[in-house]
Order: sequence, then structure tokens, then C-alpha cells
Amino acid sequence: MNEITLRGEVRPEDAAAVRALTEATGKFHGHEVRVAVELVEERLQKGESSGYHFLFAEEGGRLAGYACWGPIPCTAGAFDLYWIAVHPDRQGRKLGRRLLAECERAVRRGGGRRIFVETSGRPDYAPTRGFYEACGYRREAALADFYAPGDDKIVFGKALAAGDDVDKKPT
Amino acid sequence: MNEITLRGEVRPEDAAAVRALTEATGKFHGHEVRVAVELVEERLQKGESSGYHFLFAEEGGRLAGYACWGPIPCTAGAFDLYWIAVHPDRQGRKLGRRLLAECERAVRRGGGRRIFVETSGRPDYAPTRGFYEACGYRREAALADFYAPGDDKIVFGKALAAGDDVDKKPT
Repeated sequence: MNEITLRGEVRPEDAAAVRALTEATGKFHGHEVRVAVELVEERLQKGESSGYHFLFAEEGGRLAGYACWGPIPCTAGAFDLYWIAVHPDRQGRKLGRRLLAECERAVRRGGGRRIFVETSGRPDYAPTRGFYEACGYRREAALADFYAPGDDKIVFGKALAAGDDVDKKPT
Repeated sequence: MNEITLRGEVRPEDAAAVRALTEATGKFHGHEVRVAVELVEERLQKGESSGYHFLFAEEGGRLAGYACWGPIPCTAGAFDLYWIAVHPDRQGRKLGRRLLAECERAVRRGGGRRIFVETSGRPDYAPTRGFYEACGYRREAALADFYAPGDDKIVFGKALAAGDDVDKKPT
């Protein structure tokens, strides 16, 4: 098994890799995959001013997982985790937790106080909700019938403590 | 007192008028005013594909109030009310209610099921929250410290009944 390497730099080939990865999970609709790819493209076009930050996890030169987050406009220090996904072949090795922990460190370094993440209340999303809860996220809100009738939006949030690891960087 | 006329068409001069109106309310920060104007500009550039829909209320050729809404990406029939504002000189005449009712009709015509609107939980926003409640919106969620420490985000929602007014248009 190869070693996982993390990088925050966004490269043109990441757009196709994110498409392949989000499709491979089988978790996302076609329009959701398109949004995931658009965020990569917008970051490539506009750089950091896009407001989208990424962390890519690679193993043997292939994308094993990634996270995408950014500051929420018109807030002081609130961030949204837009995407986090791990390739199905790479799941079960705590890569999601590692990506999320590194994302939280980056948010703290950027002056963030809180991270929010939205997911579905549908039964098939129970593992996703369990993942956030296991990572210290609290269920903050439920919006009934948000995504579709019977498909609620659940908002999880986590208050970030000022850590002692502010000088650490993802390696 | 002049008659109020409503229009959904967006014109280049609306960008400056929205800036002046949102500044005149004294309710919005500079960066919020910029976002309000950017939505007008994006609509002018991209048309309906921007996802931003507007309703302008004019009185004697001047902007008296406006609303801006759009479909929430990756949902089936959920809409966000992004902005609603009435000029301070024009308040107290139920123009806000009229704009909101017309917005709801337009959302229904566009296949919308629900409207969400976000506002602050700060004491000085009590009139705004009271406005939404008076218009049939229910407090669906509160996200602690969202905008800033001590400044919660309150999400209001309203389920839109299939109305019998689907063939009515704003006049």
C-alpha cells in the first residue's frame, strides 16, 4: 500500500480527477458532480480570491480523496466545508478524518472560528452524519424538505478552539 | 403619493439604484451592499441562467423597494430569498409584504415548493424577524455565532401551497 500525500495546490488535472472521484463514490447526482468540478475550475481561474480552498490526498499518483472549503461571505470567521469525498477503494482507512482535521487546521490558520457542513437527512446518509458526529460536529439544524420532499437538510457545526498547531502545515 | 409599479425586468441602472437603496436603509454593511449589487450585475451579464430573479417596486420613477430570489442549487424546488429591502421613506405601507407575496407567486410559477430566508438573531433584527413571521414564515433553524460571535443566523421557511393564482403576473 502506497503512502498518502496531501497537497493544497490546485492543478488543472484536478478537475477531471474530482469528477472521476465524485462519480466513483456513487453518492452524488450528476448536477452535484458538476458543481464539485466547477469549484475546482473557479479556483483555477480566480486563485484564492475564488474563496475555495482545497486539500487533495494522493496515493501512488492517483486522487484518493479531497476536501473543499471556504469562508462564508458576510460572516466573521464562519467557514463552510463544501465537499469531502474519499474514493470507495480507499475508504476505511480514516482518510476522511485526516482530510477533515487538516481542513480544520487550515481554517484556524485563516482566522476561522466555526465550520459548518450540510448533508442530507435521508436514511442512506446515516454513515455521513455519523462521520461528522464522530469528528466532533454537532447537529445544529434540520430544514424539512429542503433538498426534495422528504429529504431534509441537516446542518452540522463545530466550534474551532484556537489550536497550538497553527504553525503546522499539511505535508 | 404616487402609485407603485412592479417590474421583473432587470436594467443596467438597477445596479446603482440597489446600491443607493440598500445603503439608505442603514441595515447593511458595506460588504453586504456590494453583494447585493453584484447579484444585479451577475443577472445583467448572465440573464436568467444567473439564477437570480428580481422584482423592483418603483414610485415616481424612483426605486422604492426590491426583492431578489432564486432556486437553491442541488435542490428540487427550494428557493432562497436573497434580498428584500424597502427604502426608509417608503416603509410602513406594506410594500415589503407586497414584494414578498409577488416573489412567492413567481416561485410557485417556477415550480418552487419552499422558500427559505436567512437573517440575524441580533436584537436589532427583531422587526425583520417579525416581518417574516407576519408573512407566514416559520423559524426553522438557528445557527449559533454564525455571522460573528453572538450573532446567530436564523433560518425562516415557508411551504408554498399550490395556488390558484398561477396565471397572475405582477402588474
